[in-house]
Amino acid sequence: MTMNKPKIVVLGAGYAGLMTTKKLTQNLLPEEAEIVLVNKHNYHYETTWLHEVAAGTINPNQARYMLSDVVNPNRVRLIYDTVVEVKKDDQTVVLENSDITYDYLVIALGFETNTFGIKGMAENAFSIVDIDSSRLIRDHIEYQFAKYNNEEEKDEDSLTILVGGAGFTGIEFVGELAEKVPELCKKYDIDRSKVRIINVEAMPSILPMFDKDLVEYAKKSLEDRGVEFRLGAKIQECKEDCFVVGEDNEEIKAGTIVWTGGVTGSSVLSKSGFEITKGKVTVNGDLRAPGEENIFVLGDCAWVMNEKEGRPFPPTAQAAMQHASVCANNIKALMHNQPFENFVFDDKGTVASLGVTDGIGTVFSGTKLRGKPAATMKKVVDNRSLLLMGGTRTLLKKGKYRPF
Amino acid sequence: MTMNKPKIVVLGAGYAGLMTTKKLTQNLLPEEAEIVLVNKHNYHYETTWLHEVAAGTINPNQARYMLSDVVNPNRVRLIYDTVVEVKKDDQTVVLENSDITYDYLVIALGFETNTFGIKGMAENAFSIVDIDSSRLIRDHIEYQFAKYNNEEEKDEDSLTILVGGAGFTGIEFVGELAEKVPELCKKYDIDRSKVRIINVEAMPSILPMFDKDLVEYAKKSLEDRGVEFRLGAKIQECKEDCFVVGEDNEEIKAGTIVWTGGVTGSSVLSKSGFEITKGKVTVNGDLRAPGEENIFVLGDCAWVMNEKEGRPFPPTAQAAMQHASVCANNIKALMHNQPFENFVFDDKGTVASLGVTDGIGTVFSGTKLRGKPAATMKKVVDNRSLLLMGGTRTLLKKGKYRPF
Repeated sequence: MTMNKPKIVVLGAGYAGLMTTKKLTQNLLPEEAEIVLVNKHNYHYETTWLHEVAAGTINPNQARYMLSDVVNPNRVRLIYDTVVEVKKDDQTVVLENSDITYDYLVIALGFETNTFGIKGMAENAFSIVDIDSSRLIRDHIEYQFAKYNNEEEKDEDSLTILVGGAGFTGIEFVGELAEKVPELCKKYDIDRSKVRIINVEAMPSILPMFDKDLVEYAKKSLEDRGVEFRLGAKIQECKEDCFVVGEDNEEIKAGTIVWTGGVTGSSVLSKSGFEITKGKVTVNGDLRAPGEENIFVLGDCAWVMNEKEGRPFPPTAQAAMQHASVCANNIKALMHNQPFENFVFDDKGTVASLGVTDGIGTVFSGTKLRGKPAATMKKVVDNRSLLLMGGTRTLLKKGKYRPF
Repeated sequence: MTMNKPKIVVLGAGYAGLMTTKKLTQNLLPEEAEIVLVNKHNYHYETTWLHEVAAGTINPNQARYMLSDVVNPNRVRLIYDTVVEVKKDDQTVVLENSDITYDYLVIALGFETNTFGIKGMAENAFSIVDIDSSRLIRDHIEYQFAKYNNEEEKDEDSLTILVGGAGFTGIEFVGELAEKVPELCKKYDIDRSKVRIINVEAMPSILPMFDKDLVEYAKKSLEDRGVEFRLGAKIQECKEDCFVVGEDNEEIKAGTIVWTGGVTGSSVLSKSGFEITKGKVTVNGDLRAPGEENIFVLGDCAWVMNEKEGRPFPPTAQAAMQHASVCANNIKALMHNQPFENFVFDDKGTVASLGVTDGIGTVFSGTKLRGKPAATMKKVVDNRSLLLMGGTRTLLKKGKYRPF
């Protein structure tokens, strides 16, 4: 390693960051640049699988793999640490345990929970953010079930699982819960009828990204499996054991409360002086932060405008992985004074699972799927990201081949 | 079924009660008697395996089987209910949901936890009493581990597991914990060095039923695997997060506190007006309660005197199953005006496990075992009770064939 090699620092090993790192090792020769990947954990996790970890339908280890298994150590320096702040003027990233300078910086630090200031939500609700927080939900639910038969005075509310938010995560999560609850009832000798799964949403409908017929299908399918919906119900407050909803401050009690109703980009962005719109940086078409020569912002930290439609592309894992290609290409272009490419989202479709054997989706520019075909497609999508990011061995070890 | 058939009611489907029921169906013809088995749960569980359920080293379902699978429904009426009281004068048992009369009664209701009045122990410590209470401990421990990495301010005491009592259950439990903790650390990304397993005992030594050399072996084996002993340490009080021990009221903090230091016979005994010594009924040699013509008391509800040595036989599962034979024979004798037999304990030995691959034991009147042979013998003992009580199919389904 020569000292004059430019240093590319990638922050975050999620879909965007890990894929950028891999693409950089393909785009650049070893002597062209030093590549550093900074991540809080020594593993990558599949963010889009976390609702399954939280429900306990998959093992947490299936949803993650070691970075050292998928990143070439001869090409990439791995630093396991938490990012505190980016000091743009010093071209330095402050980590909890050290500082690191950069020539090119990729910020792909993912999302944090956004409670929109709902009173008590941050304190009293769980969120599905990472492996730690997701398996905590699983263990919390199991603990409620384990306690139930030991109580002299049984509190059936303790078995209720309350999920705030009917977006992708909230709906996929209740879908998994509908699978898991009968299993837990059997395991803990509890009557299924005593357990409630309640989804609360301020909007009048679930899954706003899908067409009405698919949404109706999804809602009915979940209701048939015991999920209760409280739509058009604004959460006024989250207390330790309930949501307070609606004009009349109705209390919906529960032993487990999970908030899936909002996310925002990493708080490192605002701490580091980037201009923020709705929690994220609105990047240029080349994915650089406005006014920054050498800083790219990707994945859930970025809004990338769809100039044709005048609104941002949806912030999905699929998009994040596509950001990575554009970013890695543009870093190479920047190093070689070549022209940049602009990001255009290549939408391969969207599929939501509703448990193991059910789902809805829109794929191949408009084809609608529901039921088993959607569930199958969802697993294809999940396995695809494993293959793209983790390679064949990871796919074989962690892939979803559940029989159904 | 004629109405004049005498009715034998067995209370409790533990080792003594279930075995008595089985022996009665063998000893008596269908037309000789009606047999009723009353049990709180619809399953029998292996009490001597509960420390494994509590540590999480076996699945709770391995330690239980359905009564309907092992009791002939044409011979035995099964009632799943909780016994409130025996009204001897009315020859009636009061259950939570009904009353039932008897001609012959077998009380085999097992043990309850005895906290010897230690302040706060009943409120703040878990106990290993049945399936519900044991898997709650497992889930509580996992929950502490799951929470740890989610805390901003990490509290390492929350990972400490504190076990009061160094008798059979306490020592076998810490032995299983020594197996389980490294597995949990891996599962929850926690450093093994942060987790403490502490056994606290007022007596100067552990496992008083074994010879000194075996005890020394056991203690060293457990210490080598990270168990800490605080012997000669009297527990003054159990608070929500600690034991207060010794003269100087030292506080030993923990996230999980389990009391294994004492048991007593079912509280139904005293509620029903039997004379109680140290929590149990001291029965006659024929296993009947003193002064009672038709009431037998077995298992952990009974003290059976060893007349030769002037002290009671040890209250073990082995003894409980032997009680059953004598009781079933004596009920038959009573019905046919034949002479009674007296109970004499046929001691086949005692083996304590210290995890999966280690243990100590004394078998075949004096042969000492330690290490793997003791662990193997322990599994032989465990499988034997499955076979005796549950039959071949249960043995095949639930037997312990762990590779080691």
